[in-house]
Amino acid sequence: MPSPLIELCDLTRNASTLSSVVQLLNWDQETYMPHAAAAHRAEQQSMLATLVHERRTSPRVGELIAKCEGDKSLVGDPATPTAAMVRELRRDYDLATKLPGDLVAELAKTGSQAQEVWKEARQKSDFAMFAPWLEKMMTLARRKADCYGTAKGGERYDALLNEYEPGITAREIEAIFTPLRQRLTAFIAKVKASKNKPSDAPLHSRIDQDKQHKFGQFVIEAMGFDLKAGRLDVTTHPFCSGMAPGDTRLTTRYRDEKFTDALYGTMHEAGHGLYEQGLPKLGTLASNNGLAGLPLYGTPLSDSISLGIHESQSRMWENLVGRSRAFWEWALPHAKQIMGGDLNKYGVDDLFRAVNMVTPSFIRVEADEATYNMHVMIRFEIERALLAGQMQPREVPGVWNKKYKDYLGVDVPDDRRGCLQDVHWSFGLIGYFPTYTLGNLYAAQFWDTIKGQIGDLDQQIKRGEFKALKTWLNTNIHAHGRRYRASDLCKLLTGNPLSADHFMTYLEGKIGGVYGV
Amino acid sequence: MPSPLIELCDLTRNASTLSSVVQLLNWDQETYMPHAAAAHRAEQQSMLATLVHERRTSPRVGELIAKCEGDKSLVGDPATPTAAMVRELRRDYDLATKLPGDLVAELAKTGSQAQEVWKEARQKSDFAMFAPWLEKMMTLARRKADCYGTAKGGERYDALLNEYEPGITAREIEAIFTPLRQRLTAFIAKVKASKNKPSDAPLHSRIDQDKQHKFGQFVIEAMGFDLKAGRLDVTTHPFCSGMAPGDTRLTTRYRDEKFTDALYGTMHEAGHGLYEQGLPKLGTLASNNGLAGLPLYGTPLSDSISLGIHESQSRMWENLVGRSRAFWEWALPHAKQIMGGDLNKYGVDDLFRAVNMVTPSFIRVEADEATYNMHVMIRFEIERALLAGQMQPREVPGVWNKKYKDYLGVDVPDDRRGCLQDVHWSFGLIGYFPTYTLGNLYAAQFWDTIKGQIGDLDQQIKRGEFKALKTWLNTNIHAHGRRYRASDLCKLLTGNPLSADHFMTYLEGKIGGVYGV
Repeated sequence: MPSPLIELCDLTRNASTLSSVVQLLNWDQETYMPHAAAAHRAEQQSMLATLVHERRTSPRVGELIAKCEGDKSLVGDPATPTAAMVRELRRDYDLATKLPGDLVAELAKTGSQAQEVWKEARQKSDFAMFAPWLEKMMTLARRKADCYGTAKGGERYDALLNEYEPGITAREIEAIFTPLRQRLTAFIAKVKASKNKPSDAPLHSRIDQDKQHKFGQFVIEAMGFDLKAGRLDVTTHPFCSGMAPGDTRLTTRYRDEKFTDALYGTMHEAGHGLYEQGLPKLGTLASNNGLAGLPLYGTPLSDSISLGIHESQSRMWENLVGRSRAFWEWALPHAKQIMGGDLNKYGVDDLFRAVNMVTPSFIRVEADEATYNMHVMIRFEIERALLAGQMQPREVPGVWNKKYKDYLGVDVPDDRRGCLQDVHWSFGLIGYFPTYTLGNLYAAQFWDTIKGQIGDLDQQIKRGEFKALKTWLNTNIHAHGRRYRASDLCKLLTGNPLSADHFMTYLEGKIGGVYGV
Repeated sequence: MPSPLIELCDLTRNASTLSSVVQLLNWDQETYMPHAAAAHRAEQQSMLATLVHERRTSPRVGELIAKCEGDKSLVGDPATPTAAMVRELRRDYDLATKLPGDLVAELAKTGSQAQEVWKEARQKSDFAMFAPWLEKMMTLARRKADCYGTAKGGERYDALLNEYEPGITAREIEAIFTPLRQRLTAFIAKVKASKNKPSDAPLHSRIDQDKQHKFGQFVIEAMGFDLKAGRLDVTTHPFCSGMAPGDTRLTTRYRDEKFTDALYGTMHEAGHGLYEQGLPKLGTLASNNGLAGLPLYGTPLSDSISLGIHESQSRMWENLVGRSRAFWEWALPHAKQIMGGDLNKYGVDDLFRAVNMVTPSFIRVEADEATYNMHVMIRFEIERALLAGQMQPREVPGVWNKKYKDYLGVDVPDDRRGCLQDVHWSFGLIGYFPTYTLGNLYAAQFWDTIKGQIGDLDQQIKRGEFKALKTWLNTNIHAHGRRYRASDLCKLLTGNPLSADHFMTYLEGKIGGVYGV
């Protein structure tokens, strides 16, 4: 009798192959698709989403999971890879089967349309144009949350969170965010009061986009991103798509007048990309129960753990590496050689100080390391209230602008640069934003462990040697796929549950040093 | 009772939407896909091809077609759009269902192997290595023709032609090609004997690829190609993919040392692209039997007629427009402004004469307007004789080289540059070559009609005004989809069946003028 896991993995592999096509459709829509193709693209997306959904929810998959769950050789020891595989297949199946097919199709189609509306509304800075679509997406999100169901005493928001950050609740996030906000508010106040402010002049060296692109490619190749198994393109809203085995695509955007926007955007996406390239998508199961050789593609063991863990990888490369003094010791000579121009006037310390400036602003993706988490917390609070019906879409601009004033002391000039700046809500990503801050916190906590294990990490970075760091991440995080849940992985690697302390200590040390506070 | 045509069109529209995804996968593979993604891309293609095939061959489609064929309100008057729709849906269904699965699989497998052998044989210039595989492909092609079936008195070749050029027979093609060859042979001899030869120096102005790209985009926008509903990218082998409503993508390739290769390649693909953009893919049926509003996408009424008619559109823009003196009167000042460099040394007449040089050679894809059709006729004669068993594969090199000597007066140096130069036969494309020449002939015959109806066409081209021409093609050819078969459309538009006379008269006039013969 062959193991039921074999047929089960054949089925999930087929579904994943179809799903990888959906990801190509998404990538193409964001990069090269002609504008006039949008309506038909929505049809394609909807049709394929239905086909994928049918495969992920087929009764046969349910039967096979149940058989696996009853098979001691697979799940007897919960610490084995096969047990983790079955556990996560069950989670996926439950998530997939709890949504009816018509809701899945409607989410895909409405999301695709709403995204086009959002693009136009943002361009025109006209929130009223987008508001009815936000309401449509919230209504669908509530239906989705109700289909998933919520634990006793929980809220709908938890059910959506579970898609992105398995296991965590809104209340737990609030419990981590509240002290973070308090310690952060105090720190930002000290920084604002400092007389020892860095200058951002080095960042505003005017550099052609093709030179920026060349430097960006140089840096991500040094990081170890494989451009034979990936790409770097230009989009309005940068992202990383690990769409298929051997196919991980990054996007970025360039501004002539501030080259670090693209540089850090690119390093961020390449951090995600290294995770995707590090997942064992071409690997096979090494198992002692007759299943050795089973391909991992399409199973949870070649998939990423959570958005928070994904974000920990991007933030680590962007901030802990890219905004360190050691990084600029290595990178600046190359930056001068490739991009030249005004950069030649500056030294390592000028760049290090400039990229660590703290400037409360109204654009999340341009925010510095200290204020970034405030942007996330504002979105978390608003979307949690919208979903709960405690706020109406039409109220969003007012509430948004007030929170920016309260938390960061800034005046939002218009909706384009305010509540229309992010694409997420337009395609129904609710419960997604907090994972950005969870990522920052995981990154800082992992970093402390890595520094303990790679003694001369700082010296390696000064020489542009990223291999030991990449290998550590490959071995300790990427290679496991979803074998561990995020909270378990954190305890396994760092010895402790997630806390904002590592992040705040790192921030106070580095930024505090720059500002002399 | 709703018309059976409604459900039928729902089914074909779904199949076409899935098929449009296959076309995006193909486009991406040729343009931006990372190298390491190739193996997974084959999985995606194979899975989607199967899904499309299942939909195109489902018994329900067959039942609905039969119902439509029995419905007088749809097919009673063969001149109506619905009758044409049903006629062409029957053709598509028969083509898709008449081949048994094992033959389809064997064609794919043998074609894939034969192509690998062909690559090696071509590299080694060793036809004997390829000959047994050509015989295998011919045997399979005969089986395929027998599955399709041949009309009484016809030959197997007709059944294969029908895939590419519905309705025409080998004998009809011969009747058109024979006088073409005779008149062409005499004309080429006169041109060869002329002392008044043009110089090709203007074409070898060294021009950067980004300037060539800018000029190419300028020209195709002037032609009326809608870049909001299409793109232009770079590939090794240029093509046009009218992949979806609102989405027609062209590709080209650039050579620094000969800018007209890319220019005419781009205009050629844009000619195909204008056809694709002109097809009523977003249109609906205007019908008097309760079917008004039925979407045309996925039905034969929004599809192109044949390869020959498609090629007539590309060749018209490439040659009849692009290689005219009027075109260069308009284009040269823009070319100088956008591309500059050595081009500034030349006048309109220099360019006009250079792009109309006639040079008999042994490579089809580099051939000029006059000699190109000879390459096609040689292949038609040989593949027809091979299929009929009147020639053996081992005889091909001898026959090939003799025909090149007889028809074009050139000595083929080796099989690599002779009978091994084209990939077509290796994957079983038999009956495809003649459509290239049919396209040239249709283009010239349509052109005479168009000139009669747009009195000052030449003056318009001199001013870069292509709108009347594009509108004529949109209205008279593109808008019909497959309502008319090619031969019927030709009679309808030009008053006569297809003849080589229009092409030869055009050629003798233009090229004869250049060479003073």
